[in-house]
Parts: sequence; C-alpha cells; structure tokens
Amino acid sequence: MDVAYINPFIEAASTVFKTALNCDIERRLITFKKTELPGFEISGVIGLSGKVTGAVVLSVSTPLAFKVVETLLGTRVSDINADVVDAVGELTNMIAGGAKTALAHLDMSIGLPSVVTGGSHCITFASRVPPLGILFDTAWGPMTLEVTMETGTPGRPKQG
Amino acid sequence: MDVAYINPFIEAASTVFKTALNCDIERRLITFKKTELPGFEISGVIGLSGKVTGAVVLSVSTPLAFKVVETLLGTRVSDINADVVDAVGELTNMIAGGAKTALAHLDMSIGLPSVVTGGSHCITFASRVPPLGILFDTAWGPMTLEVTMETGTPGRPKQG
Repeated sequence: MDVAYINPFIEAASTVFKTALNCDIERRLITFKKTELPGFEISGVIGLSGKVTGAVVLSVSTPLAFKVVETLLGTRVSDINADVVDAVGELTNMIAGGAKTALAHLDMSIGLPSVVTGGSHCITFASRVPPLGILFDTAWGPMTLEVTMETGTPGRPKQG
Repeated sequence: MDVAYINPFIEAASTVFKTALNCDIERRLITFKKTELPGFEISGVIGLSGKVTGAVVLSVSTPLAFKVVETLLGTRVSDINADVVDAVGELTNMIAGGAKTALAHLDMSIGLPSVVTGGSHCITFASRVPPLGILFDTAWGPMTLEVTMETGTPGRPKQG
C-alpha cells in the first residue's frame, strides 16, 4: 500500500460527510496496526481494480449508521434493516467513487459494495497487503476507513 | 443478477476444488433466498467491475478452511491465523479468476479479496441487487458461494 494513495480517500470521506451528510469530520489517526483501531458493528466493503487492485472498508457504529439513514432518507430506524445496509453500502461507494475521481490516472473501477454486520465481525486482507487504517472522529461518533492496494506482486501475476 | 452469469462461477468453484484441492464438490441448491443458506464462520469477499459491477462471497466453515490450508500449505492449523485468512482469500480469488476467464466478454476485473471472520457475521448487498446463492456439498463439508452483478441502473449511473 503506497501511502501516497491514501489522501484522496481521506479527502473523499471528508467531502462526503460534510456535503452529503452535513456532518463534521476530523482525521484522528493513520496506522498500519489494525490493533490500534476500534471495531464497529457495520462495515461496507468495496473492491477496487484497474492499474492497482485493492479494497476499501468503512466501519461505523450502529448509532452512526442510524444517523446516516435519518439524514439521507429522513426516516428514523431502530434496527439494522435494509435501509441501513443500503446507506452504509452507498456511503462506502461514494467515498470510493470520490477517490477514484481524484486518482483518475490509476484508471480504477470499483465493485459493488457488500455490507458486513454482526458485532464480533473482523475484516482482514491477505497478509502481503496490510491495509492502511484511518480513524475519524465525526459529530456522530468515531468511524474507521481501511484502504489496501497492490500493484501486482512478483511471482504472483495480478488477477484482473 | 442475470442467472446466465452464474454457471461460470459454479464451474470455477468445481474446478478449483477438484484440481487445486483434490476435493469432491457437488452443487446442492441455487437460491435467491439468503434464509435458505446456512451461515459459516469465514467468508472471502471480492469485488468485480468492468461491463458489470458485482461481488462474490465464498463462505466456509472453520474445519473446511483448515483442510484448505492443510492441503495448500501442508501445515496443520488449529486457529484462524494469517494462513487461514490468506487461504480463504486466495480460494475466493481463484474462483473469481476462473469465472472472469469464462466471462471474458464482460471484460471483468477483480478486486483484492478481503476475509471476514466472526461466528455471527452476516454479509449483505444493496437491496436492489440481491445475490444468487449456491450451496455446495464438498468432501470437507458444505459451503456457500454468493454472486451479485448489476449492469448499471437507470437514474443511478454505474460508478466504475
């Protein structure tokens, strides 16, 4: 993971929260150590491909996800229903889409978001491509964004 | 999700299990109803993009994942360590790669696999793109493969 690629993701997250959600957001920590990041209950996962191959994981707490649904759809929710899954998937998609635009020279295309729920879930990547994790503070509580990218490994041709 | 796209994934799963793992495999059920599929402890997730946008989720039990590591690496494992994560990620990658070859006309590229662990995890997609799920019986126990693809929705430009 080239750290030069991380800023567009941080900026995209900030832009999406500020403009689409009107929610203040601040970067608190950037780390390669997953153990330094708190775990949350809902994660959006999206694959990246093109000149690099990668993935983005956005993890948020249930209350933060509920605030996102409330803001985007104008409806209150109290359990993790299809609206919550859609909202977290769409949020992940918007952040990946923003970074894709900023990283146009990588000719990235992005997959369909999947959303992982379950309090004890853990999302990891192949050990050769440790993700760079960012902890954000938002007006609705903390959240994390993890990004991993590789450009093809010697002896292991890049699929895709 | 066009069901015509599902066969290459089923064939890729069969080929990978038979040739790379020497493990018998049989398709038992194809369904759009997630509730008809059992849940397992370890899932590999990979994004697809190109003329379609999608994702593949391979879910296996812990014992099945251990057998995969034992067969691929020749080492016994007894907990979900980096080898297990790598093996499930690589298995998902091999299946997506096989389908990509068979579906060359879709010009698909595939993202980096992420691996979800945690007994109670649940992986879902945006409600507009329900995945097609396949339940397989293998010599090492059952597993599921879920595939979702979309070709871009009117009013919502396809990202990527």
